[in-house]
Amino acid sequence: MPVSLADIRYELAIANRMCAHEGVIDAFGHVSVRHPSDPGRYLLSRSRAPELVTSDDFIEYDLDSRPVREPGVGQYSERVIHGEIYKARPDVMSVCHHHCPSFMPLLATGTDYLPVFHLGAVGGIKPPVWDQHDEFGDTNMLVIKPEEGASLARALGRHWMVLMKRHGVTVAGTSVKDCVFRSIFSARNAEYQVRALTLGSNIDSLTPGEAGLAGSISTKTTGLMRSWEYWTMRVAKAGGTPLRAKKKTAAAKSRRRGKTRRR
Amino acid sequence: MPVSLADIRYELAIANRMCAHEGVIDAFGHVSVRHPSDPGRYLLSRSRAPELVTSDDFIEYDLDSRPVREPGVGQYSERVIHGEIYKARPDVMSVCHHHCPSFMPLLATGTDYLPVFHLGAVGGIKPPVWDQHDEFGDTNMLVIKPEEGASLARALGRHWMVLMKRHGVTVAGTSVKDCVFRSIFSARNAEYQVRALTLGSNIDSLTPGEAGLAGSISTKTTGLMRSWEYWTMRVAKAGGTPLRAKKKTAAAKSRRRGKTRRR
Amino acid sequence: MPVSLADIRYELAIANRMCAHEGVIDAFGHVSVRHPSDPGRYLLSRSRAPELVTSDDFIEYDLDSRPVREPGVGQYSERVIHGEIYKARPDVMSVCHHHCPSFMPLLATGTDYLPVFHLGAVGGIKPPVWDQHDEFGDTNMLVIKPEEGASLARALGRHWMVLMKRHGVTVAGTSVKDCVFRSIFSARNAEYQVRALTLGSNIDSLTPGEAGLAGSISTKTTGLMRSWEYWTMRVAKAGGTPLRAKKKTAAAKSRRRGKTRRR
Amino acid sequence: MPVSLADIRYELAIANRMCAHEGVIDAFGHVSVRHPSDPGRYLLSRSRAPELVTSDDFIEYDLDSRPVREPGVGQYSERVIHGEIYKARPDVMSVCHHHCPSFMPLLATGTDYLPVFHLGAVGGIKPPVWDQHDEFGDTNMLVIKPEEGASLARALGRHWMVLMKRHGVTVAGTSVKDCVFRSIFSARNAEYQVRALTLGSNIDSLTPGEAGLAGSISTKTTGLMRSWEYWTMRVAKAGGTPLRAKKKTAAAKSRRRGKTRRR
Repeated sequence: MPVSLADIRYELAIANRMCAHEGVIDAFGHVSVRHPSDPGRYLLSRSRAPELVTSDDFIEYDLDSRPVREPGVGQYSERVIHGEIYKARPDVMSVCHHHCPSFMPLLATGTDYLPVFHLGAVGGIKPPVWDQHDEFGDTNMLVIKPEEGASLARALGRHWMVLMKRHGVTVAGTSVKDCVFRSIFSARNAEYQVRALTLGSNIDSLTPGEAGLAGSISTKTTGLMRSWEYWTMRVAKAGGTPLRAKKKTAAAKSRRRGKTRRR
Repeated sequence: MPVSLADIRYELAIANRMCAHEGVIDAFGHVSVRHPSDPGRYLLSRSRAPELVTSDDFIEYDLDSRPVREPGVGQYSERVIHGEIYKARPDVMSVCHHHCPSFMPLLATGTDYLPVFHLGAVGGIKPPVWDQHDEFGDTNMLVIKPEEGASLARALGRHWMVLMKRHGVTVAGTSVKDCVFRSIFSARNAEYQVRALTLGSNIDSLTPGEAGLAGSISTKTTGLMRSWEYWTMRVAKAGGTPLRAKKKTAAAKSRRRGKTRRR
Repeated sequence: MPVSLADIRYELAIANRMCAHEGVIDAFGHVSVRHPSDPGRYLLSRSRAPELVTSDDFIEYDLDSRPVREPGVGQYSERVIHGEIYKARPDVMSVCHHHCPSFMPLLATGTDYLPVFHLGAVGGIKPPVWDQHDEFGDTNMLVIKPEEGASLARALGRHWMVLMKRHGVTVAGTSVKDCVFRSIFSARNAEYQVRALTLGSNIDSLTPGEAGLAGSISTKTTGLMRSWEYWTMRVAKAGGTPLRAKKKTAAAKSRRRGKTRRR
Repeated sequence: MPVSLADIRYELAIANRMCAHEGVIDAFGHVSVRHPSDPGRYLLSRSRAPELVTSDDFIEYDLDSRPVREPGVGQYSERVIHGEIYKARPDVMSVCHHHCPSFMPLLATGTDYLPVFHLGAVGGIKPPVWDQHDEFGDTNMLVIKPEEGASLARALGRHWMVLMKRHGVTVAGTSVKDCVFRSIFSARNAEYQVRALTLGSNIDSLTPGEAGLAGSISTKTTGLMRSWEYWTMRVAKAGGTPLRAKKKTAAAKSRRRGKTRRR
């Protein structure tokens, strides 16, 4: 378990790159973490593609998704997804929002997600589906306003994944690693489910009992650590390991305050 | 925004490689730009695969798709696609023609393109479909004659994308970056739509209101620049960053005039 | 044919990486080999992703899947799959367990595997299908208890492949190379079969006579060695060739005994 | 146009690697060329995966597929495919046999190949389909006997492609480049056709007139050379450019005669 803020930042940078490398996020999408010592804050990258994110890119936000310090750089417009979920769910320590291609056929047809193999249990059986249009009418589909984020968080409820119709998916986890594991394996499962559905509508889902038991595989250490080592290696092989933060975070921040920064 | 012709050429070389790397174009297909200071001209590569194009490869054409100077190298046979669209649409600054695999199922079955997620709005709702056979009968399917290009431009009308049955797609944009963004995300959307259609015919498209609002995401700076940085990085990682032009363009041209050049 | 234990270990490390590189296994899944001189033992990696496995990672197990020496490292929870098959099938020298995406549509719908091209004959015609739920009710789906492994081995019977509903596949072979060949080409065949089924249900399978004759292609030297050289090269090109063991195995073991080891 | 035998060998080595890199052939499959000065002979690699083939690997065969000199190395068992087609078709200068995944759904369901975009015309409209079982009953599906090859050549007739049910595809060309172009673009077309068929059975094929005109694009220089340069670059980028032959071919052969050689 990472303990220092620097370690958390580094783990979060890797998490973003991992999800990108495994095809869950592309130019868009992002992974955040709740601040390890202040549950009223969370860390999310400045506006840049997740595959490029480094330890230095994270901005601290309060749960209303306002930056704690003037960041002086571009910000993701959909950060309220993260803030509102952290506000509604004290047990959630990490959030991933993505538009993974594997989910798109489900999101475009309103088909329920079903775990079709044990690792797919991380997404639950028929997790909630949210459509921004229901409550907010015609928008540009982005979740930008606090009330849009809050509506999504309500839809998520006690679940770990919520499907966003004609848009994407948001996944929650008890840690960065748990959130990444859920994000990647639910995406794999969606891929398999969609391909299975092309053979007909008789899908054998996991039973509720199986899904409950298999769903906790992600919180057991062996499989989770094995996967994390594997995905880390794959990012490294592709030349994508992020650099460590250049400076001590606190110092860096005080020096950076009010300055714009571009790399 | 690039200002010099050298910058425009370099951006266009990257754009060609980007579209290749992201799977929109392969050995065939091309991206052009209208000349920044002379709206009666446009720049398009000599005949070579887009993934290989450099700043030095562009030929200047007038809007009748005649080279301004004898290029002394092979030319794309379908350049009238570009010229006729620039002629018909003064607001278009960049054009991409491609045969992206994602679109092929739509083009082979006459299925309308529908935006199934917000970024797919860049292609519009049910953009026009053009079949060369309707007006010109049996051809080798290539758009070579000025009247063929003009017919395609008429079909495009005020839209930003036109589907070419049993052939490919042509996309227009207000800048090179806008054109690339539209080309890549409409291709992603087509992929998702086709996969969704394998689950049944009940596709939930964006509403006209949503498509209008979401369609302008591409012209907002944050998402566009984030994507451009991402795609640029991916081209670089794959070892595909183009070289800068070797010489000042004007000088290079005068020296090159009438000479054949091969690399 | 490898003769020394060091050679066997090295071949097994390559086999694990090969199956990973060819998309048969990912973070999960594993390939084992029966001990070359003691048929009552088998070698299986410690708990780590197959793509990372080296000659030094293998643990010796007895056929009850108990480590012969205290390994001091994490172990795969599903090792009884291997042990129980070696126990039931003296002719089996290598076992691969995987969750290959290509099989998932079959496993999620209960569709029988059919060889649709000659190399697919390595999996047989309609090999047995096993569902852990039938005998054990709700579980986390992992094959962990000896009786679960024994049930799977009974389902395998005299076949070379058994499908595990809503979970994965287990493949047996007469050697590591044979097992890898069967694993990879049955996965290719499953991919083709699933895609063929999207065109309709009229699949032309190999006849029993053809499947019997074509199924023995894998044990003929030319095709098997050609494939092995090819997959080895592909692992090497991807920078994934495993290191040779650092020490003589026996010595290494005695020194390692009772010590934890992490790399 | 290559003129020397050394150039022909080098071009053929690249052709094999190209087809491998573009996903047309894998561990199996092969591309051959008719001997440039002796139409009664052809060149085909010794038994090895096409992606590994070098200029030194080619064996000269007569049209009965007997090696002109004792090769002292393993040979492809299916070489009669090549020999019998060269015998039956004096206009054919190059042959490619493959099991490309894109074709498998057609081959497993007996679905006719249809050109769904202009470049797919290289395969013709509904090219012939051959089933080894019709004439030879249960076999291991490999085309090994001269009469099997002759039967396939008869099925090919005056066409440029013949589908082999539950097996693969054989493509002929007027040159190595033409054969590769046909092989790759017919495979792309098959991919698109199969995906289009998942949307329904209403495929808009090219008309016979269009297919005739578009089919000759491959013999025009611009597109063919552009594709060749592109595929060559892609092989090079993947680190797969073959070495030039080490020695003059004739000398090498006389020295090699009767010796086994392995690399």
